[in-house]
Amino acid sequence: MFYVMKLTISYNGTHFSGWQRQQRKRTVQGVIEQKLSELFRNKIEIDGAGRTDRGVHAYGQVATFGVETTIPQEKFHLLINRRMPADIHIVSTEIVDESFHARYSAKGKRYAYKIHHGLEKNPMVADSHLHVAHTLDVAKMKSAAEKLIGEKDFRAFMASGSSVKNTVREIYDISFKEDNELLVIEFHGNGFLYNMVRIIVGMLLDVEASRLPIEKIDQIVESKDRTQLKHTAPPEGLYLVKVYY
Amino acid sequence: MFYVMKLTISYNGTHFSGWQRQQRKRTVQGVIEQKLSELFRNKIEIDGAGRTDRGVHAYGQVATFGVETTIPQEKFHLLINRRMPADIHIVSTEIVDESFHARYSAKGKRYAYKIHHGLEKNPMVADSHLHVAHTLDVAKMKSAAEKLIGEKDFRAFMASGSSVKNTVREIYDISFKEDNELLVIEFHGNGFLYNMVRIIVGMLLDVEASRLPIEKIDQIVESKDRTQLKHTAPPEGLYLVKVYY
Repeated sequence: MFYVMKLTISYNGTHFSGWQRQQRKRTVQGVIEQKLSELFRNKIEIDGAGRTDRGVHAYGQVATFGVETTIPQEKFHLLINRRMPADIHIVSTEIVDESFHARYSAKGKRYAYKIHHGLEKNPMVADSHLHVAHTLDVAKMKSAAEKLIGEKDFRAFMASGSSVKNTVREIYDISFKEDNELLVIEFHGNGFLYNMVRIIVGMLLDVEASRLPIEKIDQIVESKDRTQLKHTAPPEGLYLVKVYY
Repeated sequence: MFYVMKLTISYNGTHFSGWQRQQRKRTVQGVIEQKLSELFRNKIEIDGAGRTDRGVHAYGQVATFGVETTIPQEKFHLLINRRMPADIHIVSTEIVDESFHARYSAKGKRYAYKIHHGLEKNPMVADSHLHVAHTLDVAKMKSAAEKLIGEKDFRAFMASGSSVKNTVREIYDISFKEDNELLVIEFHGNGFLYNMVRIIVGMLLDVEASRLPIEKIDQIVESKDRTQLKHTAPPEGLYLVKVYY
């Protein structure tokens, strides 16, 4: 039988050189392709919903691949997971229509950015949270975040070097969850430009620390000028939570 | 001035070959001694309250050292922490009396053991929790744990190869904290034998899975026979929480 399969994938990005397959580097795509190729005894290539950078994590990355196999469908999930290393887990394995494409069929995405804010560092969360050495004024960050809700040209929030032409995106919601010294900011939108979430978080932290007046945000969006924003938050706090279809 | 200093240390044990200094291996003691020796421009050796194995973590390990220095006392904490890698944090730096000894002055210890129990693995907690692939019957584990409270000869719970003579210890309390699929078991006692917490957790999991009848626990304690217990829980779930003086 020939199947097109959709994998929903969770991974801890700490020990990967990002998602995308690279020669002689441990990447999420590379490891999954190798394990699938072993399982199906055939060279398998997978298409991801989006690349994640070195150190970025995922709860719900999505990837598809086609395979001709005699292995019964109901055994796929267990057999695939059994081969995965401890830092990758396949959350679900589904058969989808051939017209389905992990990237082009995506209608929206949800990202999370995790911050540990406290005077003292915590080695247990160093790979999973950005550390900020003071207590954050979360209300101030919320006010700044509200200015980004809606459909806008986010060109000023796209990493330089990206070749994307249409830089208009809609952010549906930015929410904040607090738990003592841990803060999670969630971003839900129809799509995000390269490094857009990390650049937004960098801006929110600049506003919080009074390095950037909140009144300047609208102006920065309108300028479409990448050089207006100085800080990109580091990768270890970023999580691809969900891809919507 | 000559100072005896007491450090309270938190570390993520994932990328260390345990606490104890070893040639050509990255150990917690080795890294801290190297950084302190650089800071004080003098060979510093530290005494820990206890060794932790490869992969074991700590919130409150304690170590002492003596140093002759002109650096003012109030600067120690910041200067030491500045040199530490992301997986070690010095929680506090205190000057203590010369009679204080991290190991011999200890009156009690608290350990935690963290378990992720759920059908699906979670790559985010793979280095910090033991994974058990079914929902645990925590009530059953509590009943088994109660049988260990009090002063007993815990010889049956000491890793073979340990040369400790007096194997009588008192466990004051074993408590369970549940948060969805995460379970934390805390052990408070006047001291613990080598691998004792991990052997107890292995036993609790055997009782939970009906591999060992709860009625046999008293007998096992009385037997003082290490071979009665088959499973030592793995190191990644173990945390040295606090040393009491």
